Amino acid sequence: MEPFIHEDFLLQNETSKILYHQYAKELPIIDYHCHLSPREIAENKKFRNMTEIWLEGDHYKWRVMRALGVEEKYITGDASDYEKFKAWAAILPYCIGNPLFHWTQLELKRFFGTDILLSEKSCDEVWELGNEMLKQEDFSARSLIKCSNVEMIGTTDDPLDSLEYHRQIASDANYGTKVLPSFRPDGLLEINQDNFLPYVKKLEKVTDQSIEDYRQYLNAIKLRVEYFNEHGCRVSDHGFGAFFFEECTVEEASTIFQKKRDGSAISKLEENKFKTNLLTYLGQLYHSFGWVMQFHIGALRNTNERMYQQTGANSGFDSINDYELARPLNQFLNGLDRDNLLPRTILYSLNPVHNYIVSTTAGNFQSSGSKGKVQFGSGWWFNDQKDGMISQMRDLANTGVLSTFVGMLTDSRSFLSYTRHEYFRRILCNLLGNWVEKGEYPADFETLSKITQGISYYNAKEFFTY
Amino acid sequence: MEPFIHEDFLLQNETSKILYHQYAKELPIIDYHCHLSPREIAENKKFRNMTEIWLEGDHYKWRVMRALGVEEKYITGDASDYEKFKAWAAILPYCIGNPLFHWTQLELKRFFGTDILLSEKSCDEVWELGNEMLKQEDFSARSLIKCSNVEMIGTTDDPLDSLEYHRQIASDANYGTKVLPSFRPDGLLEINQDNFLPYVKKLEKVTDQSIEDYRQYLNAIKLRVEYFNEHGCRVSDHGFGAFFFEECTVEEASTIFQKKRDGSAISKLEENKFKTNLLTYLGQLYHSFGWVMQFHIGALRNTNERMYQQTGANSGFDSINDYELARPLNQFLNGLDRDNLLPRTILYSLNPVHNYIVSTTAGNFQSSGSKGKVQFGSGWWFNDQKDGMISQMRDLANTGVLSTFVGMLTDSRSFLSYTRHEYFRRILCNLLGNWVEKGEYPADFETLSKITQGISYYNAKEFFTY
Amino acid sequence: MEPFIHEDFLLQNETSKILYHQYAKELPIIDYHCHLSPREIAENKKFRNMTEIWLEGDHYKWRVMRALGVEEKYITGDASDYEKFKAWAAILPYCIGNPLFHWTQLELKRFFGTDILLSEKSCDEVWELGNEMLKQEDFSARSLIKCSNVEMIGTTDDPLDSLEYHRQIASDANYGTKVLPSFRPDGLLEINQDNFLPYVKKLEKVTDQSIEDYRQYLNAIKLRVEYFNEHGCRVSDHGFGAFFFEECTVEEASTIFQKKRDGSAISKLEENKFKTNLLTYLGQLYHSFGWVMQFHIGALRNTNERMYQQTGANSGFDSINDYELARPLNQFLNGLDRDNLLPRTILYSLNPVHNYIVSTTAGNFQSSGSKGKVQFGSGWWFNDQKDGMISQMRDLANTGVLSTFVGMLTDSRSFLSYTRHEYFRRILCNLLGNWVEKGEYPADFETLSKITQGISYYNAKEFFTY
Repeated sequence: MEPFIHEDFLLQNETSKILYHQYAKELPIIDYHCHLSPREIAENKKFRNMTEIWLEGDHYKWRVMRALGVEEKYITGDASDYEKFKAWAAILPYCIGNPLFHWTQLELKRFFGTDILLSEKSCDEVWELGNEMLKQEDFSARSLIKCSNVEMIGTTDDPLDSLEYHRQIASDANYGTKVLPSFRPDGLLEINQDNFLPYVKKLEKVTDQSIEDYRQYLNAIKLRVEYFNEHGCRVSDHGFGAFFFEECTVEEASTIFQKKRDGSAISKLEENKFKTNLLTYLGQLYHSFGWVMQFHIGALRNTNERMYQQTGANSGFDSINDYELARPLNQFLNGLDRDNLLPRTILYSLNPVHNYIVSTTAGNFQSSGSKGKVQFGSGWWFNDQKDGMISQMRDLANTGVLSTFVGMLTDSRSFLSYTRHEYFRRILCNLLGNWVEKGEYPADFETLSKITQGISYYNAKEFFTY
Repeated sequence: MEPFIHEDFLLQNETSKILYHQYAKELPIIDYHCHLSPREIAENKKFRNMTEIWLEGDHYKWRVMRALGVEEKYITGDASDYEKFKAWAAILPYCIGNPLFHWTQLELKRFFGTDILLSEKSCDEVWELGNEMLKQEDFSARSLIKCSNVEMIGTTDDPLDSLEYHRQIASDANYGTKVLPSFRPDGLLEINQDNFLPYVKKLEKVTDQSIEDYRQYLNAIKLRVEYFNEHGCRVSDHGFGAFFFEECTVEEASTIFQKKRDGSAISKLEENKFKTNLLTYLGQLYHSFGWVMQFHIGALRNTNERMYQQTGANSGFDSINDYELARPLNQFLNGLDRDNLLPRTILYSLNPVHNYIVSTTAGNFQSSGSKGKVQFGSGWWFNDQKDGMISQMRDLANTGVLSTFVGMLTDSRSFLSYTRHEYFRRILCNLLGNWVEKGEYPADFETLSKITQGISYYNAKEFFTY
Repeated sequence: MEPFIHEDFLLQNETSKILYHQYAKELPIIDYHCHLSPREIAENKKFRNMTEIWLEGDHYKWRVMRALGVEEKYITGDASDYEKFKAWAAILPYCIGNPLFHWTQLELKRFFGTDILLSEKSCDEVWELGNEMLKQEDFSARSLIKCSNVEMIGTTDDPLDSLEYHRQIASDANYGTKVLPSFRPDGLLEINQDNFLPYVKKLEKVTDQSIEDYRQYLNAIKLRVEYFNEHGCRVSDHGFGAFFFEECTVEEASTIFQKKRDGSAISKLEENKFKTNLLTYLGQLYHSFGWVMQFHIGALRNTNERMYQQTGANSGFDSINDYELARPLNQFLNGLDRDNLLPRTILYSLNPVHNYIVSTTAGNFQSSGSKGKVQFGSGWWFNDQKDGMISQMRDLANTGVLSTFVGMLTDSRSFLSYTRHEYFRRILCNLLGNWVEKGEYPADFETLSKITQGISYYNAKEFFTY
């Protein structure tokens, strides 16, 4: 019997196979947004066993384990690594239709060279085989990246971060992959969160600037953007539970900032005004540095208090929000574009019902003479699966231009996630190939190859000017 | 020519056929939520003709008849039974793409043994054939249930109901199907509806308790839950036009209850606070009795006043609402889960744009060590059709775990609806089979059979502990 | 190699081919809603070259050109016609998956008789071939309409319009196509727009009536409806950024109208009350004249201020809005239906997430004894593409009755758009054919032909009583 992951996995016709094998497969990976630890790359981390490399921190897996009735002990609790691995192996076959099934088998094949279907029965075999390989010299963070043909990695970093590990990686002239920071300033914007003022204090310290008013605050922020820029950063990233836009002058923002410092309560309207003004300032800064601006909109986080006490943030208790998007998003982009200060931008909305709003909004701000300036980002988080990716690409094609798409990113915490680029490219090539086979696009391989290669690699290379 | 309903109806490939015929077809039916009349089951109702058994009360059919220009006289009016049947027969062929077409032909085949395609031309033949069979001794409510291999029926009952018919059915030791009540307390929650205070009065009478304040109200409610529990009830059901969550203490709820009793107006905010507190209390009660809690969210009902005067509620003038769901639903479930008092729950949202919100919200509250504790319910009402069922299952698979799904229910008022379980199982098997045939899941029939049988029967059997 | 646009383009099986070629292809076109210029039809406009006929005013094309990095100079700027054509030709191959690709090749084939795939390479050949044909005597507005087999055209007209060109066209007894005005009174309703009072002034002048209060305003409006009716108008059309419903008496509306005349600010609530009252009045008027009422809901327009200054309205800077729809839409339709004064109605919602709301809302107001009285309109604007059309038709079929659908309209500003009816009919026939081939509908060609012909032509003919 043919192995599950075979040469033509997900490629359903001849055109798809040609596009994938001849044009997409060999291209390097630009993984422009992920949550890998720069420290682990710098220190070339090795992994004690399959549980550490595969299950630690992977809340996608934790969620399906909980849904299948696995006790928390075997997920984030004090069970042994082997017990946790076994619990995971036992439930995987029941994840039919979930991307974790494909991801798992792809990772086993590409990194561990095995066609074994993970299950309760095969658990021990995979555990031993995997652990044995993890002991090998070259089974480390850096070599996993290298063997995945990764050209660039964009990590996600706090504005206060020293970026020491990025420096350390960059200083190694022999390491071919660029590991660049991304500026993720959520802490600067969330004026209503408890740690806002302590965060401002830390910013004072890191920048060695006194921050007594909003202008000094903006100035200190600018220093951090410059610092990140000097360390190769070319991308920012923002996470919002919902989007907002309330016109706000610098004077108003200053007053709100002062109110906060004085210990007064900040209303939701004031919060949104403050964030609008500051985000506009940041957008202008990004534009001046030639950075790309990313918005991840719409996660409802930490909804389960009981488990938050037990397992903390990012442990699998987040879902999709509903929120108004069209008006505030258009108004915000317009505020920057009005003065010709809109940076290249990628918009990700977690709620897939917004696909058409995002795609048509992006289309309102392309008037720059540069290709694909405002992007409808790849299927994010819960949408990062076959159906979700196809929807995002079809929706973009129907209401915008798929050819300009900068393509896939892992958004991952795991060094084994690079196969998701392969997964994406197969799905992309199958989509394009299906159109050709159904007579909806001519068999013009000159253009098809450019489109395939563009979305797989070259569009991102052009977009992120690292 | 092969009959329209043939052995492999809707089964498009070999794997699908194996899954359906070998694993799904013969399993009993657990119809855990419907609107059948317990009285009609108890009295083993017989039907005077095809119009009574097929058209009376069936607002799905009424809607398409109206859309096709049939006059109300032939729908709910004073035309003869034959004229009504003829009006229905004449328009059915024009219901292409509507589930009624498939349901009708399946019901004709399974209950009346005929392959005739119903139409104006075949109307008389079906009318006579059907009416003839309805005269037979064994063509009654109970025998229709029995020949459909139904193991359990969950009816939908008012908290004030005496449940006498359930008792009567249960007392018949020879009748193999369990007919269990569900607790549907909408009348207890809707404090702003005109019949709220009269309803409280009736509750006083039924429970023989004086209800002077909120605590006495809660106590009387508890007595009804106990009463239902004694009669085999294991499930509650709630219908909401939209969802709500506003933190509310017992003291606040008591004040609002008192205001209502004093004849004061209750604001929307007060209403939502009251409902939040009471629904939380109910959730805790359900948990203590080991019941399943069901929410049907999002019907906009009785929107046509003119026809409401003429034909009343549930006559085909309801549609789908738009409403905020993510925040209140997560907050409500969290409020119960925080104290470890969240019962097993099924969430149905009428607006299919909420599929991903429902599925990812359910995923936030699975941390119980039991399988599929919070369920994304089957395609409901307008979504109870092939495309809707496939969307619900794909969306659940992509963002949760399809394998744990408790599957289909009829939600029906008709004794001929049991074929919808066959319809669902065929669609399920075809979905699973397609994944296998496209190489997206291995041909591992050991697991596939468990998944198929689980969703068709065993998951529900485990979930509803009747 | 077979040409890209061949006999069976988009027809994937035998049933689809039969339905299209035998039943749909030859039927005349009823283009009941478009934005063609009546003047250009009256004057039988000729076109100087391919750029004028194909690119001028076509913001669909402009948007994809901008997304692909074409400078504004080559879109709406001062580049030569040839340069603009070349810029368009060069990017077309990159519009894979966008309807413009199919539309373009269909228009080249049907109007210019060529199978050339437009691209940078073929640009000059098409430019010359096309321009040559445009010089021919019979390549004019009227002959393009005639050769497209168009029976009726519904233009979109301001209530103040003299309709002189419609008169001129109607007076030509030899011209077989009916060109009828549609009443588009957005200017009458938008009380908060700057040009509201000047518009009322113009209405006074055109009707030769003094408008001192709301009743006189309504009376003047009625005169214009009568005027349009005398000129063959049978359809109104409304555009709304979102929908609204706030109960409002004539007295309240009068007060708001007076406030506006007195120079006071009108709140959003007052605006919505005023619009509710006036729109209800208009609906009653339409009903009394037997007109069809159309609502186009949900465009967020002119979102890019910088480009609005440069290129004005309708130049490609509009997107899809999010808005509440179910409650206000049901309430508004109910307000008319309550008094039995609801006209035949078509509902278009730009946001496709509303498909099920629109379809089920339409279903609430069919109780008239006439077929398909309230219609869920064809995929509009961003939804006017293969996937969008299929979604609209499947959603309508699943939750209503597809057979009653009045089908396609171009909504276009171009005389070359009539091929979109061919495009739609192919997609329709393929959808129906697929159901038959998959065994989901019997091969009953008697009914299938009626359904196909109905949706392609006869339903519209019956619905628009021109």
